Amino acid sequence: MKRMILAAVLAVAVHGVAVADSDAVAAARSYRKANDARILRDFADLLAIPNVAARPGELRRTAVAIRDGLASRGVSAELLEIDGVPPIVYGRLDAPGAERTLGIYVHYDGQPVDPSQWSHPPFEPRLYTAPVDRGGRSRPFPEAEEAIDPEWRISARGAGDDKAPLGAIFPALDALRAAGIPRTSNLVFFFEGEEEAGSDHLSDYMAAHREKIDPVDLWLICDGPVHQSRRPQLVFGVRGYTGIDITVYGAERYLHSGHYGNWAPNPAHDLARLLATMKDDQGRVLIEGFYDSVAPLTESERQALAEVPDVDEELRLELGLARSEGVGSLVERIQMPSLNIRGIASATVGSSARNIVPIRAEVSIDVRLVKGNDPAGMLDLVERHVTAQGYHIVRDKPDHATRLAHPRIARVVRRPGYPAVRTSMDLEIVEPVIEAASRAAGESVVLMPTLGGSLPLYLFTEQLQRPLVIVPIANHDDNQHAPDENLRLANLWYGIDLFAALFTM
Amino acid sequence: MKRMILAAVLAVAVHGVAVADSDAVAAARSYRKANDARILRDFADLLAIPNVAARPGELRRTAVAIRDGLASRGVSAELLEIDGVPPIVYGRLDAPGAERTLGIYVHYDGQPVDPSQWSHPPFEPRLYTAPVDRGGRSRPFPEAEEAIDPEWRISARGAGDDKAPLGAIFPALDALRAAGIPRTSNLVFFFEGEEEAGSDHLSDYMAAHREKIDPVDLWLICDGPVHQSRRPQLVFGVRGYTGIDITVYGAERYLHSGHYGNWAPNPAHDLARLLATMKDDQGRVLIEGFYDSVAPLTESERQALAEVPDVDEELRLELGLARSEGVGSLVERIQMPSLNIRGIASATVGSSARNIVPIRAEVSIDVRLVKGNDPAGMLDLVERHVTAQGYHIVRDKPDHATRLAHPRIARVVRRPGYPAVRTSMDLEIVEPVIEAASRAAGESVVLMPTLGGSLPLYLFTEQLQRPLVIVPIANHDDNQHAPDENLRLANLWYGIDLFAALFTM
Repeated sequence: MKRMILAAVLAVAVHGVAVADSDAVAAARSYRKANDARILRDFADLLAIPNVAARPGELRRTAVAIRDGLASRGVSAELLEIDGVPPIVYGRLDAPGAERTLGIYVHYDGQPVDPSQWSHPPFEPRLYTAPVDRGGRSRPFPEAEEAIDPEWRISARGAGDDKAPLGAIFPALDALRAAGIPRTSNLVFFFEGEEEAGSDHLSDYMAAHREKIDPVDLWLICDGPVHQSRRPQLVFGVRGYTGIDITVYGAERYLHSGHYGNWAPNPAHDLARLLATMKDDQGRVLIEGFYDSVAPLTESERQALAEVPDVDEELRLELGLARSEGVGSLVERIQMPSLNIRGIASATVGSSARNIVPIRAEVSIDVRLVKGNDPAGMLDLVERHVTAQGYHIVRDKPDHATRLAHPRIARVVRRPGYPAVRTSMDLEIVEPVIEAASRAAGESVVLMPTLGGSLPLYLFTEQLQRPLVIVPIANHDDNQHAPDENLRLANLWYGIDLFAALFTM
Repeated sequence: MKRMILAAVLAVAVHGVAVADSDAVAAARSYRKANDARILRDFADLLAIPNVAARPGELRRTAVAIRDGLASRGVSAELLEIDGVPPIVYGRLDAPGAERTLGIYVHYDGQPVDPSQWSHPPFEPRLYTAPVDRGGRSRPFPEAEEAIDPEWRISARGAGDDKAPLGAIFPALDALRAAGIPRTSNLVFFFEGEEEAGSDHLSDYMAAHREKIDPVDLWLICDGPVHQSRRPQLVFGVRGYTGIDITVYGAERYLHSGHYGNWAPNPAHDLARLLATMKDDQGRVLIEGFYDSVAPLTESERQALAEVPDVDEELRLELGLARSEGVGSLVERIQMPSLNIRGIASATVGSSARNIVPIRAEVSIDVRLVKGNDPAGMLDLVERHVTAQGYHIVRDKPDHATRLAHPRIARVVRRPGYPAVRTSMDLEIVEPVIEAASRAAGESVVLMPTLGGSLPLYLFTEQLQRPLVIVPIANHDDNQHAPDENLRLANLWYGIDLFAALFTM
């Protein structure tokens, strides 16, 4: 039954058949058209409050403004606080007779800014006719009756990542109220102020206020961009993360490469050989068991993947790549765990290279995890592989006696990790989300089993034991984390429609 | 016949049978014993003149002092000059009836100094009871009648490298004159002031003054240390040098390792695989033809090598190595060409590593050459190997079109190189040198076919077309190129005996 409904929704998505706008989406659109200049100005006011994660003092102002924004819309809103940590903006808005509670996660903090790199001060929002790096010109914010081009960009730190959902949720609530359309779910708002700093206290907040968020049946993680093809997307998971640093050693001091080269072991060459055993030139990781714990994709996930627009060729052209690694498209590759060299260092290169045998060689590796992979277990596999290549593993810099006792020594430093998250597309509660997004988009939405990137969303699925769906609204070219961050107005409009649809699904 | 004489000398060397001191060595010793305090003071005066290669202005003072030192001993001495280049100190001292002319090469410039690293100002010579880092104490220079411990060290920049031969040649000439012992060879002195700066004008000086040095039958290259076992040694060659830098490329910009890792080619991993194909874990270079052009060792050279004291185990202990690379001892390894990684770099490691796919990876390689290896030809072999691994070779940073046209691109930068030198131990003119050194040493001397290091001595053998023998006198632990450079007095005394023997052989 679930399968059949999902299949029907996917069929709509696949064939691009337009679905009739629901009342809610129609109401959101007419409300937005009547109020677009004001909606934009309200969003600009929110963007004007600095929200750099590295400056926690500023974040409180932002949190207060958001709490007040919720409260003015009838939400029972408050700040949850832990000393010295940016507050959580929490809110609850019940719907009479609702049998379902949706959790809405947004983060209101932003990445650092280097104003010298921006076209304008990052917390003085500007409107541009197009992206600045593609010829966009600054223009005044429109008056009430002026026509607004949906290709315009509103630019400020946080415009895309991650105040954009706030810019859409408030008008969506207003639109539904104005049209007298009842919400069908209870809503729990849970807005974090520490995401760009690593979400170090998210787990503590969840534990301290468990009773406030326990009613949530499904979390909507409002963050990230839509698909590169500009098609709206829903994302059902993120990859997990871990990493390992390996240092191999040569002699205790630098040796003259003429007098000792090819007699003294060269740690750079040893490391090269070690790394060569880890991945072949087709991109397949050769570490035993590396792919064994991968949870297989479901039929729905496989079908969804087959429908994701192919951007590989375009990406290769853009990036100057005549090939990509491995068999399969980008979107297929990120369904598998990865082993990526972040950096290698041994002595010096180029004009500062010296005629020496290096004393050590270091590599830093990150491992991205998919559903089924245990972070520590994956590092165990890497270590076992290193051992199998004849290395004695140490945790600290080896002393003289250790060096004399072992022909090959690898110092291994394991990075902390966390697992992947992937919500099944076949869950009953997921079906209306897909349907609502398709209605809001007016076209099929991309259903992405996982993002390539990593976020600690396992806190929602493991600590809170609830499913989640990521519902992005920002454009993929929003300069997230970079200068001239911006939100395309068409994406903001989509966001308003999307939340109106989700709140009434 | 030649072989038999050499074999006899070697037999002496092998069995350590003391040879009767010749008159010249005896005369040198008694002269030295009677004048040791003054000899030491004269040497200290020479060491007190700064001679840093990087400050050419100071070098002239040193050159003038040496010229005057030669002239005061009856040598027809002068400075040869090229504008803006440190002069050559040239001298000629004929011996009536001599049928042979020996060329004496020394360099009078020294490495840079960082006085803050020294135990005393580097151009204020001091006498120590032992090496400073092994508890040596500074003590006054001795008075005429005081007993002098041959284990004392005289410390200053240039004490070992390479004013030491000057500190020995002058007293040797004085001793022979005092004893009325005639020299048996004409002598040509040719002292360079630019060795530590790369000997960039040595070839020009040779060409400009060819007629002055053309009479030389055998060059004695007076530089470098004796064997690590403290046994005096003669060295018959040096390795040649060349090098190659290779950069391989990934995408044109840094990519997020979660979104693109294991799809975007990782140049660090590509480079690791490329390097792994170049040398196996037994130290054997796998590049096709790498060992093909090596000139085989002669029977004399093989015999000499077998007699070189084995220092491998001691070295491994000192350096914290549980193994060395490859089959064979250190002295055997340096008879072969080497391929050594000087450094590798790709993005960053450790705490500054980022979650990215690097855009490029670089390696710097030096290749040491032995007799028979052509520098350019060896780099051709390396390039052919890179091509055989599927790389398209470029000379400059590849542009977008080049990147799109070739799946694997390696930028190759070839370093300038020069060939190895190895004088045959079987040459007739070499026999008396071995015999003289053994007489001076009072024991068998180590006969080393080649040093592991590289010097552009091919100028003597190829431009001048003359054989050469390297006659080192400095101790191996002289802190050459380092702070607290020093000469062990026993080595200075050996030098005086050695030159007295060589000048009368």
